[in-house]
Amino acid sequence: MKQPQILAFDIFGTVVDWHGSVAREVQALLPGVDGDAFALAWRAGYQPAMRRVMSGELGWTLIDDLHRLILDGLLTQFGVTDLSEAQKIELNRVWHRLDAWPDSVAGLQRLKTRFTICTLSNGNIGLLTNMAKRAGLPWDCILSAEVFRAYKPDPATYLGVAKVFDVSPADVMLVAAHQDDLAAARACGLATAYIERPLEFGAPRPKDVSPDPANTWHATSLTQLAEQLGC
Amino acid sequence: MKQPQILAFDIFGTVVDWHGSVAREVQALLPGVDGDAFALAWRAGYQPAMRRVMSGELGWTLIDDLHRLILDGLLTQFGVTDLSEAQKIELNRVWHRLDAWPDSVAGLQRLKTRFTICTLSNGNIGLLTNMAKRAGLPWDCILSAEVFRAYKPDPATYLGVAKVFDVSPADVMLVAAHQDDLAAARACGLATAYIERPLEFGAPRPKDVSPDPANTWHATSLTQLAEQLGC
Repeated sequence: MKQPQILAFDIFGTVVDWHGSVAREVQALLPGVDGDAFALAWRAGYQPAMRRVMSGELGWTLIDDLHRLILDGLLTQFGVTDLSEAQKIELNRVWHRLDAWPDSVAGLQRLKTRFTICTLSNGNIGLLTNMAKRAGLPWDCILSAEVFRAYKPDPATYLGVAKVFDVSPADVMLVAAHQDDLAAARACGLATAYIERPLEFGAPRPKDVSPDPANTWHATSLTQLAEQLGC
Repeated sequence: MKQPQILAFDIFGTVVDWHGSVAREVQALLPGVDGDAFALAWRAGYQPAMRRVMSGELGWTLIDDLHRLILDGLLTQFGVTDLSEAQKIELNRVWHRLDAWPDSVAGLQRLKTRFTICTLSNGNIGLLTNMAKRAGLPWDCILSAEVFRAYKPDPATYLGVAKVFDVSPADVMLVAAHQDDLAAARACGLATAYIERPLEFGAPRPKDVSPDPANTWHATSLTQLAEQLGC
């Protein structure tokens, strides 16, 4: 099988554990709040917020600012009234401090020896760079919705990766833990690899990680994907 | 002195040796052509080509495509008529294969321990990523005219770095071997570091590398800059 040249990675849930990282920080900062529920609600606000941008209701907005919009609503909803503005800014940046899944750094280091590895996330460039520096994610290049001025699943993002590297869509493979992201990439002609992340939403609610035969690869971790690709 | 958080690097001439790299490849591919003169002429075509974009005569154009425009003219000018299309494409990509100056990798590795280090080049993202991967340049993030849809010295590029990282312009320092680039960055409020690259245009024509006291730092190499910044 012909291998792609470029591996583009979804980030939240695929490479880093947003649920565990956010829940832990919220719990530590706000002991009276259910960190697990707060993390889920914050993430659940993300798609509707992006839809407000896509529909034109909001102008182009960085994910940092969408996260803050959602956070302000959640603080009210969870009855938190005693955070200073500086504390809110710091809490909002928890999305820059997400921990990698245990296999991510080792898997990426192996994949990087044979492929160009880049992010393809709706997260903004600054967020993705700060996250990578803290967690040791060895990207060759940070690509983001911010570069393409469009969020996934807009075809401009998937096709944008091929354009940046001047290759055909089939030379790019999206690596993600979400079947809808992979399906949208496939519709643009990209190869796809599904990564099982059963604990993405926390241990109490394991995610369905059944294989979809439409994907080019299916792996339990980034190290297993490296194995499959001969790295 | 308060130190910046982000170091943004000019690339061509500052981090990599475009003249020597291009001259060597041209000489090897086209033994009848003066590689030194060809490299100088190719680079000399760069500013006028960017001006055609800035003036609106050309639409937004990646540097890869500007390089090719200039190359086609040069091949005629130097009497080269026997290259295939595939050979021209390959030759044009010499700009992805530029060698780093001897101190660059070690200097960047040291600077990366304390600062976020990114490119800020008129080169396109694919070019800069391929170059970094080949030469081992350990960027935290690849920023480029392509991200900002403007070439240096447009203020949108210098201020764009501060915006990406959500910091003030004074928290960003441009590192470059060109006083005009640094002056434009300073006018936007950035700190500046000049790097001496006397051989940028080849050994027969050493460049004036006199200090300008307006710069925050002046160093003979990226390793010396690391030394000065306490890395």
